[in-house]
Amino acid sequence: MKIVPVSKATLGRLPGYLKLLRKISPDKVPYISATTISKELNLGEVQVRKDLATVSGEGKPRLGYATEELIKKLEDCLGYNELTGAVLVGAGKLGGALLQYEGFERFGVEIIAAFDKNEHTINIDSKIEVLPMSRFESFCKERNIRIGIITVVEESAQDVCNQMVRSGITAIWNFAPCKLQVPDGVLLQNENLALSLAHLSNQLSRSDKE
Amino acid sequence: MKIVPVSKATLGRLPGYLKLLRKISPDKVPYISATTISKELNLGEVQVRKDLATVSGEGKPRLGYATEELIKKLEDCLGYNELTGAVLVGAGKLGGALLQYEGFERFGVEIIAAFDKNEHTINIDSKIEVLPMSRFESFCKERNIRIGIITVVEESAQDVCNQMVRSGITAIWNFAPCKLQVPDGVLLQNENLALSLAHLSNQLSRSDKE
Repeated sequence: MKIVPVSKATLGRLPGYLKLLRKISPDKVPYISATTISKELNLGEVQVRKDLATVSGEGKPRLGYATEELIKKLEDCLGYNELTGAVLVGAGKLGGALLQYEGFERFGVEIIAAFDKNEHTINIDSKIEVLPMSRFESFCKERNIRIGIITVVEESAQDVCNQMVRSGITAIWNFAPCKLQVPDGVLLQNENLALSLAHLSNQLSRSDKE
Repeated sequence: MKIVPVSKATLGRLPGYLKLLRKISPDKVPYISATTISKELNLGEVQVRKDLATVSGEGKPRLGYATEELIKKLEDCLGYNELTGAVLVGAGKLGGALLQYEGFERFGVEIIAAFDKNEHTINIDSKIEVLPMSRFESFCKERNIRIGIITVVEESAQDVCNQMVRSGITAIWNFAPCKLQVPDGVLLQNENLALSLAHLSNQLSRSDKE
């Protein structure tokens, strides 16, 4: 199978397909068509075909998709068969909120540890351990952690980012409102919350003027 | 001036332009060219021209942009001359993190109040008042609030959304991981944090397979 990138929009719909297929159960319905799926989920048929093509390829003519196989492929794509471990650095309010945020596991990702430079003042109401930064590198290397989440202040973000790269992390999700430099081969995804709110506000004020 | 929508990417660069222009000061430099700006900020000249065109129109041939006027237009676009008030519903961890998140004002938005159904158990270390939901509608109507942020659990999100619409809110920033129904004319922006992390994880696992 050719590896095609899964867009964020497609990814967001995959748990819905999986839920439906599990509900109908492969014993009773060995094959399911894109038409049936699209009706059940109230989605366009073209969209369903496109989404499923990125995960599993085409269905069989006149039969549709083999239900059991499609379930497995969706689970694989969503990482259900192997939860990906992530670490978080910066156990402040936002970090704490992410540690408690439900729904990461629904997409196959689990935050397994949080780190903070200040190990004494940490008081997070969460099941996840908060460790001192001195243990960061060895922790990540031992467990082969690949995903790092940055929720520290702007001033410390590049340092933390460098430490992550040194520790073998190759995908960084950055909440600090600044540009980070990463070497080639490291994925960087910026989450600028202020900008998201600003964009909404700006759309609002422009729709007022129109 | 024709009202053109400002993209999120452009919006994110506007504070940088403003900072530069304020630094050089209009008295000393009455006109500034896109070339100068692009060199100072290490951005492409075409991008600078496009960004500034959405805010202020074209510069004058051979002179460039009138510095003082451009500063004003950037401030207007970023809402600096009139902070837009927003309210937040759901004063849990994520809500608390947003209340403390710095940088909203940099984009002209200010969260002026938070609401929660449970007024007794609220203990947020923030300067912003947390009010009971019973006061929500009158608060929003009196102050003509237009922006609402939803940080409640999935089950309550549609109810809160309906209450916001009834209270005159026309732009909703939703953090609950569910689809909300809004009437025509109400802007809805969904922030699915789990999906963002999942997207990063998925890119990572696909780059491994390649």
